[in-house]
Amino acid sequence: MQATAQIGVTGLAVMGRNLARNFARHGYTVAVHNRTPARTKALVQEFGHEGAFVAAETAEEFVAALERPRRLMIMVQAGAATDAVIEGFTPLLEPGDMIIDGGNAHFADTRRRERSLRERGIHFVGAGVSGGEEGALHGPSIMPGGSAESYAALGPMFEKISAKVDGEPCATHVGTDGAGHFVKMVHNGIEYADMQLIGEAYDLLRQVAGFSPAAIAGIFREWNKGRLDSYLIEITAEVLSHVDAATGRPFVDVVADAAGQKGTGRWTVQTALELGSPVTAIAQATFARAASGQSALRAAYRGLPGGTGADLAPYEAERFTAQVEQALYASKVIAYDQGWKMILDAADEFGWSIDLGAVARIWRGGCIIRAAFLDRIRAAYAADPGLVSLLADAGFAAEIAQAQVPWREVIATAARRGVPVPAFSAALSYYDSLRADRLPAALTQGQRDYFGAHTYRRVDREGSFHTLWGTADRIETGA
Amino acid sequence: MQATAQIGVTGLAVMGRNLARNFARHGYTVAVHNRTPARTKALVQEFGHEGAFVAAETAEEFVAALERPRRLMIMVQAGAATDAVIEGFTPLLEPGDMIIDGGNAHFADTRRRERSLRERGIHFVGAGVSGGEEGALHGPSIMPGGSAESYAALGPMFEKISAKVDGEPCATHVGTDGAGHFVKMVHNGIEYADMQLIGEAYDLLRQVAGFSPAAIAGIFREWNKGRLDSYLIEITAEVLSHVDAATGRPFVDVVADAAGQKGTGRWTVQTALELGSPVTAIAQATFARAASGQSALRAAYRGLPGGTGADLAPYEAERFTAQVEQALYASKVIAYDQGWKMILDAADEFGWSIDLGAVARIWRGGCIIRAAFLDRIRAAYAADPGLVSLLADAGFAAEIAQAQVPWREVIATAARRGVPVPAFSAALSYYDSLRADRLPAALTQGQRDYFGAHTYRRVDREGSFHTLWGTADRIETGA
Repeated sequence: MQATAQIGVTGLAVMGRNLARNFARHGYTVAVHNRTPARTKALVQEFGHEGAFVAAETAEEFVAALERPRRLMIMVQAGAATDAVIEGFTPLLEPGDMIIDGGNAHFADTRRRERSLRERGIHFVGAGVSGGEEGALHGPSIMPGGSAESYAALGPMFEKISAKVDGEPCATHVGTDGAGHFVKMVHNGIEYADMQLIGEAYDLLRQVAGFSPAAIAGIFREWNKGRLDSYLIEITAEVLSHVDAATGRPFVDVVADAAGQKGTGRWTVQTALELGSPVTAIAQATFARAASGQSALRAAYRGLPGGTGADLAPYEAERFTAQVEQALYASKVIAYDQGWKMILDAADEFGWSIDLGAVARIWRGGCIIRAAFLDRIRAAYAADPGLVSLLADAGFAAEIAQAQVPWREVIATAARRGVPVPAFSAALSYYDSLRADRLPAALTQGQRDYFGAHTYRRVDREGSFHTLWGTADRIETGA
Repeated sequence: MQATAQIGVTGLAVMGRNLARNFARHGYTVAVHNRTPARTKALVQEFGHEGAFVAAETAEEFVAALERPRRLMIMVQAGAATDAVIEGFTPLLEPGDMIIDGGNAHFADTRRRERSLRERGIHFVGAGVSGGEEGALHGPSIMPGGSAESYAALGPMFEKISAKVDGEPCATHVGTDGAGHFVKMVHNGIEYADMQLIGEAYDLLRQVAGFSPAAIAGIFREWNKGRLDSYLIEITAEVLSHVDAATGRPFVDVVADAAGQKGTGRWTVQTALELGSPVTAIAQATFARAASGQSALRAAYRGLPGGTGADLAPYEAERFTAQVEQALYASKVIAYDQGWKMILDAADEFGWSIDLGAVARIWRGGCIIRAAFLDRIRAAYAADPGLVSLLADAGFAAEIAQAQVPWREVIATAARRGVPVPAFSAALSYYDSLRADRLPAALTQGQRDYFGAHTYRRVDREGSFHTLWGTADRIETGA
């Protein structure tokens, strides 16, 4: 077999198949391989006309088909399957070759694999790929980690097949080793928060303002023309306007209200706990899905008394709708700010140099959270690459200043009416915690010193202090 | 050396030393051992008069001093040190002997160690020990996991040295393998939540009602006479009434407001995410500590606009104080309910048979969250051992029904005034989520089916469904 392929894709389930087709449609010669060769044959048979495919039946044929240095992309299940495929191919490769993992790996696994393969001279590139099946085929958002050298060889190809926004590709070199998969994980965490916030806005419009799903779809369509313009708002309107054919009822009313999760939201929160990054809106969104599936608990709580409130007059409902838009936008800015800070904290921890503006840029298209809003974030980092927070940007700060009173009103109303707003209120508490001059954490430190001699720091002197609480004078000891 | 000791303690830092003294003071002969023998000598020299100690210089001497089956308790740092000590002693032991780990191990490590030692015929008992240095000496709360056989040999000793409440010991056989360390972990998670809730109550009383720390100390002292009666409320009053000698200012105002954490709160939330147990108040408490330490972020947010509100008249401040008590109590019930449900979920997952009423019983004394309240929980499980939730108990349900309106008012006030209440509002959202007839999770499922073909379930039919969203008629496919 002649080495004619610029890239090879092994693992031809729908994501791998569509990525292979995307490469081929862009003029690359693509070697394709699957553990069971039937899938390889089916791909070439069905889509061979789209470009240049080289079907390889064995691992040896597959590797032999690749130009050097080889670019071998694996699209298999995260976890043990990925390790098995890497182990299988590595002996067939040579120093300088590249293995790209385009699956949803945990970034810690990617770090481990990168280290191990680096010792054998092979570049390992953990690449987050977002956008699902459609994105893989028509233009995903691609977040590759790994060495700068590997990006020099791969970047142009990724940029070519990625989504484009304003002519710019939605792919960039995120950082070394696990940085790409890390950023993809945070993307999914933000996606959880964004969806939960939209769900809470819907719930408020329905339960407080009394609007029907169809009417709320109309409100979301309006919002989609403004600063909330995004794929998720767009499809929310589609879902809410859908009528179930079998029953004639609103689709959203016939769907069971127990949400599933695929684990990346959970990973985000677990990792944030390690890093000390307080991603509270993402956490509440993740737990909200878990709570929805707690059927025994829901049965036990059902019927417990809730809040009250009179029906809104039409003009009140209209005003409330405008308030909810403000609350949704403000909460969304906070949720994104939490994700961005988490990336910053991880960059510190793992020694990554991540261009946060570039992350915003490559999320403008191809991925689930794509939104006009991300161009604003990109612009904020362009103006000041050292931003610690989105709210340090004058534009975002002004918007929050304007939104904060209605945001507070919406949460007060939700509390009184008994509508659950875990992510809205986590976002507001985050805002109020971080802008506080003093936090009750000082009391916490006092308590910890009291019962566990954990010591505390002082506002007026350097050092660690402990109070001898049991003594008559409560003697303070310093160090 | 003659085998005269009923128990041996290796690792004589303050916790190990105090536990050894506690055993000796209760009439047991205690073999003591430390990696560096100086500590062993110091213990016997200083406290030898308290009981029968056998000082062992080497591991061999230590093991030889123990009656068979041997009870060997290790009190060293969690993690690698624990593994090293286990590895060192195991070859010296015989089938039927017991190794007790009284450190703060992660329950997953305890499960691994128990499995490995069981294969070698040795009982491994992961025992959570709560109460700090003072508790270890005067009576801790002890939560041992492991085999029933090992508890038969160890339980009477643990029960003897533990704290007593109403004549009952604060020690019980929690369950097999990692159950003891698991329950200890959840104890610490609840402790985080309890402390954060107290902190929020303090913050509200100070910022909204305008009370001084000394006045708030008085309020906590009053509360400590009622249903909130607990060690943490008691020491809160002590901390708040303390005046810093150096400055003459309230102590709480000179302590730096960045809270530390030792990791068990984090473990609780990370594990809850694995289990799908929505411990939102514990999570918010853990993240609140992390947020308090995010100094760059706090600097970026400081000065952003907050809420407003007029000063309260004295009669309003008094009414508000009563509302805060209701909110604190209701939030506390929810936080404990989250912890209890997490234990229940873990029992399902790991095959543990845990008596939830007994857990409440052994937390009534010795540990940080000890409180009159826990006797109420014990009683609720005594009345119905199958309780899914504390709120399925008529007594708790009635209290929440009575508390919910003021609870809602407090959160509305906090939102409007700009006082951060992450745990209070997480608790209320949890309550409102679980009692809801319908959750916006249905919309989430619709969105997930739209962008990722994740399928959904229906309220009116069994099976998995997918809607072909791209098609004109949005055809529904079922399975």
